[in-house]
Amino acid sequence: MQQKEIFETYESDVRSYCRNFPTVFSSAVGSVVTDVDGNSYIDFFDGAGALNYGHNNPYIKSKVIEYLQGDGIMHWLDMMTVPKAELIETMEERVLKPRGLNYKILFPGPTGTNCIEAALKLARKAKGRSNIWALMGAFHGMTLGAMALTTDRTDRKAAGITLDNCTHIPAPYMFPELDTIKYMQTLLDDDHSGAEKPAALILETVQAEGGIYVLSEEYLRAVREFCDKNDILLIVDDIQVGCARTGRFFSFERAGIVPDIVCLSKSIGGIGLPLALCLVKPEYDVLKPGEHNGTFRGNQLAFVASKASLEFMLDAKVEDGVKEREAVIKEFLEENIVKPYAEKGISIRGIGCMWGIEMNKNAMSKAVQQACFKRGLVLERAGRDDSVVKIMPSLVIPMDTLKKGLEIVKEAVDEVMANA
Amino acid sequence: MQQKEIFETYESDVRSYCRNFPTVFSSAVGSVVTDVDGNSYIDFFDGAGALNYGHNNPYIKSKVIEYLQGDGIMHWLDMMTVPKAELIETMEERVLKPRGLNYKILFPGPTGTNCIEAALKLARKAKGRSNIWALMGAFHGMTLGAMALTTDRTDRKAAGITLDNCTHIPAPYMFPELDTIKYMQTLLDDDHSGAEKPAALILETVQAEGGIYVLSEEYLRAVREFCDKNDILLIVDDIQVGCARTGRFFSFERAGIVPDIVCLSKSIGGIGLPLALCLVKPEYDVLKPGEHNGTFRGNQLAFVASKASLEFMLDAKVEDGVKEREAVIKEFLEENIVKPYAEKGISIRGIGCMWGIEMNKNAMSKAVQQACFKRGLVLERAGRDDSVVKIMPSLVIPMDTLKKGLEIVKEAVDEVMANA
Amino acid sequence: MQQKEIFETYESDVRSYCRNFPTVFSSAVGSVVTDVDGNSYIDFFDGAGALNYGHNNPYIKSKVIEYLQGDGIMHWLDMMTVPKAELIETMEERVLKPRGLNYKILFPGPTGTNCIEAALKLARKAKGRSNIWALMGAFHGMTLGAMALTTDRTDRKAAGITLDNCTHIPAPYMFPELDTIKYMQTLLDDDHSGAEKPAALILETVQAEGGIYVLSEEYLRAVREFCDKNDILLIVDDIQVGCARTGRFFSFERAGIVPDIVCLSKSIGGIGLPLALCLVKPEYDVLKPGEHNGTFRGNQLAFVASKASLEFMLDAKVEDGVKEREAVIKEFLEENIVKPYAEKGISIRGIGCMWGIEMNKNAMSKAVQQACFKRGLVLERAGRDDSVVKIMPSLVIPMDTLKKGLEIVKEAVDEVMANA
Amino acid sequence: MQQKEIFETYESDVRSYCRNFPTVFSSAVGSVVTDVDGNSYIDFFDGAGALNYGHNNPYIKSKVIEYLQGDGIMHWLDMMTVPKAELIETMEERVLKPRGLNYKILFPGPTGTNCIEAALKLARKAKGRSNIWALMGAFHGMTLGAMALTTDRTDRKAAGITLDNCTHIPAPYMFPELDTIKYMQTLLDDDHSGAEKPAALILETVQAEGGIYVLSEEYLRAVREFCDKNDILLIVDDIQVGCARTGRFFSFERAGIVPDIVCLSKSIGGIGLPLALCLVKPEYDVLKPGEHNGTFRGNQLAFVASKASLEFMLDAKVEDGVKEREAVIKEFLEENIVKPYAEKGISIRGIGCMWGIEMNKNAMSKAVQQACFKRGLVLERAGRDDSVVKIMPSLVIPMDTLKKGLEIVKEAVDEVMANA
Repeated sequence: MQQKEIFETYESDVRSYCRNFPTVFSSAVGSVVTDVDGNSYIDFFDGAGALNYGHNNPYIKSKVIEYLQGDGIMHWLDMMTVPKAELIETMEERVLKPRGLNYKILFPGPTGTNCIEAALKLARKAKGRSNIWALMGAFHGMTLGAMALTTDRTDRKAAGITLDNCTHIPAPYMFPELDTIKYMQTLLDDDHSGAEKPAALILETVQAEGGIYVLSEEYLRAVREFCDKNDILLIVDDIQVGCARTGRFFSFERAGIVPDIVCLSKSIGGIGLPLALCLVKPEYDVLKPGEHNGTFRGNQLAFVASKASLEFMLDAKVEDGVKEREAVIKEFLEENIVKPYAEKGISIRGIGCMWGIEMNKNAMSKAVQQACFKRGLVLERAGRDDSVVKIMPSLVIPMDTLKKGLEIVKEAVDEVMANA
Repeated sequence: MQQKEIFETYESDVRSYCRNFPTVFSSAVGSVVTDVDGNSYIDFFDGAGALNYGHNNPYIKSKVIEYLQGDGIMHWLDMMTVPKAELIETMEERVLKPRGLNYKILFPGPTGTNCIEAALKLARKAKGRSNIWALMGAFHGMTLGAMALTTDRTDRKAAGITLDNCTHIPAPYMFPELDTIKYMQTLLDDDHSGAEKPAALILETVQAEGGIYVLSEEYLRAVREFCDKNDILLIVDDIQVGCARTGRFFSFERAGIVPDIVCLSKSIGGIGLPLALCLVKPEYDVLKPGEHNGTFRGNQLAFVASKASLEFMLDAKVEDGVKEREAVIKEFLEENIVKPYAEKGISIRGIGCMWGIEMNKNAMSKAVQQACFKRGLVLERAGRDDSVVKIMPSLVIPMDTLKKGLEIVKEAVDEVMANA
Repeated sequence: MQQKEIFETYESDVRSYCRNFPTVFSSAVGSVVTDVDGNSYIDFFDGAGALNYGHNNPYIKSKVIEYLQGDGIMHWLDMMTVPKAELIETMEERVLKPRGLNYKILFPGPTGTNCIEAALKLARKAKGRSNIWALMGAFHGMTLGAMALTTDRTDRKAAGITLDNCTHIPAPYMFPELDTIKYMQTLLDDDHSGAEKPAALILETVQAEGGIYVLSEEYLRAVREFCDKNDILLIVDDIQVGCARTGRFFSFERAGIVPDIVCLSKSIGGIGLPLALCLVKPEYDVLKPGEHNGTFRGNQLAFVASKASLEFMLDAKVEDGVKEREAVIKEFLEENIVKPYAEKGISIRGIGCMWGIEMNKNAMSKAVQQACFKRGLVLERAGRDDSVVKIMPSLVIPMDTLKKGLEIVKEAVDEVMANA
Repeated sequence: MQQKEIFETYESDVRSYCRNFPTVFSSAVGSVVTDVDGNSYIDFFDGAGALNYGHNNPYIKSKVIEYLQGDGIMHWLDMMTVPKAELIETMEERVLKPRGLNYKILFPGPTGTNCIEAALKLARKAKGRSNIWALMGAFHGMTLGAMALTTDRTDRKAAGITLDNCTHIPAPYMFPELDTIKYMQTLLDDDHSGAEKPAALILETVQAEGGIYVLSEEYLRAVREFCDKNDILLIVDDIQVGCARTGRFFSFERAGIVPDIVCLSKSIGGIGLPLALCLVKPEYDVLKPGEHNGTFRGNQLAFVASKASLEFMLDAKVEDGVKEREAVIKEFLEENIVKPYAEKGISIRGIGCMWGIEMNKNAMSKAVQQACFKRGLVLERAGRDDSVVKIMPSLVIPMDTLKKGLEIVKEAVDEVMANA
């Protein structure tokens, strides 16, 4: 049987990405992936944000192979192990302390949604309240606790039950005439609002799946102040936009705020190994032994990769590199997308190495995506009606590859707009 | 800072296993793990069932390293890739077809709880009902959808919200006077039972966390018949007890039944790499593209390891080896535990390479565990009040290591019973 | 337009009883109701238990008319009024104290379901737990809080949402082999039962809608003991079976137990005026002012009627009369129903003035009901599949009317069994 | 025991109104109530809106007594009876048809909250959706289904469980800068809003408990249009503001809209007898026989009173009388409250015979209430923080009594503002 046929015959119909990129991939290095027919593709998809340091990053990979070859323990639940100690130490000493951050580290299981579920447990127990506030436009995961926060209608419907204990607050960009901070304060102050005071407010500082909406620094600071004033925890979901994606290791650093709980996953695994970390202020580290568990929360190989990725990130000054790439991407898109197509309603949004081209319609963004793939570029779509073309290269993509990829995007948009 | 201190200072208080085994582990081969001080321990814990083929199984590990060295793509969501094609093909051609099983494979994300959440979505959508029936004594995971099924009281309380859309059915061993199949039928037939007809009934054929309760073949067949008769899906959670643990690759094979959905995780990852698979009869493969997703559902290294583990399992005739070890363990325990201590209420339960010694009290099982650790054996506890000492070695543990471990268990029990 | 046509044209299709008794009723005295065509019917229906003292009981009615004629205040929410003071005083001094009962009285609104909702609030607040245990077979009302306890499948489905925060416990008659007290204790003691400890256990001492199942005194005492031992409130729903229906004013008196909360409605309104009372032990009277409210909780005319009904009940020694009628009914049914039809599976159940003939099939009980109506007797059906013919006359039905009614029942059953 | 003592000793602490009006009331005629000490009070409270036609309205009362004296059937569940036929006919022929309204009548039980629960069932079944949208500021009742819609925080907390399946929408007066119709449309159109499409939107055209907020005709028409466009039912809760309170029998008539379901209670009972009616467009009359039930849904005496009240309302041209009184009240308040105290932030809101003085603080409104009571006037408070003094006299209050009452209000406000 041909490999493509294997998937069509045996894999569940729920499979999704593969339908838009109908080839069988085999290997990948840096920002280039290769399929079984020898075709190469520039990667602006980045494994949905899990490959910030490039495919098979040589430094990280070497540490992983070394560990494997030494018969390092691979899996041992939440026992104490050498790789875990080293990861914790690196995170605390080299990442948190220099940033003035004081968090305990909770290993919630290897996926982002595990991490969100753990954060919700922490917040609910710490505050003794069951409700959580999340923003409209949010994506926080697909297990039931996280899914109650996630706003994508298709995702929610698939739950098959009523999703509760969450109230969705308008995102600040949705109703510009509404001061959404004042709105939240009114929900609390008005004794006839019908609102339940939440244990926590959770947000992504850049709504990725929502359509690459960058929340302003002023807004983030106002949210932090709101939470402080009202005894509500602030959880930042940095799963997709953390790990230097926006130019600083934590996405909230640009606003100068300190969340009570931070959720990390995706690129924290270094080279795509499943890992998630939940950072929590010591005073909210309230779960007793065993109150959250899960088999794979001791994925040692990912600990090794994660430690190596932090070292790489610091030593290679990845944050600075993001800012350089940000300038290139922004300038390119303004010149080649905004200038020609602004009056046709095309716009861009983004920060760091995460940009969106708002095509306004599913069919349009899909056409761009297909035109890119035809030309050797893989990228994803996001947002309302999936109308946003999402440009999310590795943070260490070589400049010429980045430019080549951007040229393809330009050509694709030109082609699509010419036929629109 | 000393490594132990790192954990005490920086890791969340939720950490659990490490408290009973207060040393820092470094490497592991087969059934022996080693700590940083050079102490070695026989492993009857098996990473909670994720290491059926031994730590750093050489065949599996070699495939993993080979893949890494070849710059194989590591992470690519649910795109088509070579390792995924090969895993699917191996599972279908070498595992499912020879057993006469016809399942589609859904990749739900890398953890057992992801897999349960996906199974629940499938069932709820397929049947258009929201309720699920689970057995008292069950453990199915710790994200909110799965946690509603899980029965451990501490786990449930930590949710911080009401867990609903699940009805718990007495396990057959709990009330021997009650025909629990008839009980379930009455819940459906009695129009005043207050029961909601479920989309699915889910069970572990051996309740592991519940205390190593082996459900009888007759019971399993009766459940299958009950589900068929009443248009209810049967989901078997084979996360801990599948992958040959009980002597057949799937734990339900001994009863000759075919579930509608099978959840696999833990040892399906080969050497402890996070992976889960949801096997679903084609007619219930009802989720549309994207209705279940998650970043790490394309953990390529785990696909490689998983394929290799299936090959190993088949080629090394692991199933046969389990039966040999089962005989050894059973005989040993009957001679050395049951015979001397039966009249003091100590009993054993188990199948394959999964046995429990019922010590009846938390303090007793804990004392045995500590006495074992002191003697160089790691094992876990389970069950009501955590009163069961859990013997769960690798399926390929060398016979002499197995016997050595069992001797330690005997000594530990003797010591504890002498002081009781 | 003819009156019957008015209903068919304008009244909602949800109307139910009227479909089985297709005539327009006009007046009623004692145990006889009359329709617009001058036909009279013996009443074994009793307004579903709200007319224990007979239609238009002359003593009660005279007090009501007197009050109306004196321009007594009719409606005044929960202000202090003369009728309310007099009702409270009569209830406390003449009913509760002589029985050694010490309850505060809460006026929850005029319907049984209001009363149940208030009782649930009290219990949940008093114990700080959200779950409630109710028995399979129970009926407790049709607003959402009460409906979660009610077991009738049709009723529940009509909710249109998931009913939660209630666990249904097998009624003691359902699985005779199962000790349901031990079952409940196991749910609490087994830390893997999946059960949530309830704030309260609620029951009807005789399940009326469930099919006239009389719970034994031993069972009731065991439940009381179980609740005491486990810090769970016991709520007795005496809405249908209180007010002397079973031979004592409170149905639980026969078992010598004292519930923590008692719900009264139906005949507490004297002559069918809407009223409900919630009796609560002082230590559980925990709702603060306004935490339960409702416009019609000060139905003064019903207070007047209620006080008069208590006086009538006591002065006319209604409790004694119930026992006399019980003997008559029981003897008649045993002679005329059980003796001839026991071997065809027909059986009886009951106590006081509340009896059921188990016809085993909806079609059979319906045929009996129709054959009765044809002969001038109104009675209702109840139970699983509505298969029980329900004999529920006024407690003061004249003996000859009672016998006449029973004769009709006999004829109807004979006719139906002859054609079966 | 003194009567006051009876309440303190035996009545539940949940009692509320009586605390602000500490006297025992005995009789009442028209707009004057009298206590046991012979003190008389003008009534601006109106039994919370259940006494629109005055205490012991002579016409209505005469019909009630006549019926009682004729041994009319008092209680007969949902059987066909003469009083029910006559009420239906009067409502259809004299109220609905002349207004061009075509509704079926559902008898949901005698309280407003029963009616809301029935309306929710109808809507959920008709549309197959579980969510309901209600406005912030709303009060819809105190049983669990209705309570999920009610916004008062104290009421909600008393539920003791999570209230779900309801989303609260900002009332139009809360955020003047926000177009709340557009807001609702965005919740539906934005596939990442996280909002569940509701079966129905429910509102009071004048939020009474919320603080006498009159929703504009434009808003009401826009809501109707929004519901039509989006296949959502519109339920108007006319329990407090119907029955001519606002100048037209139905409060929504002023906006020229036709709701899909109308909930009536309170004054529909004529002289304070418990009654509720649910009016439903024939196409949404989807509940099958028995899917909603309740013992007291056939309160015959209330049917008699209700019919008489409709006759009275029409024959006495009550609607016109409301408009005359509206003019008097409005002019008086503008002259005596707004003019002197507007700059101190005191304002008024209202329509028909329902007005509120916004005192901005609980302590202030309470002081006014007590100052009124001292002077022989009973009135209630409402709104956020209970800061609104509520002027709600009978619709047929004699003009001089009305003016006398208003003078007392003026004096009370003067006194309170002088001390402020």
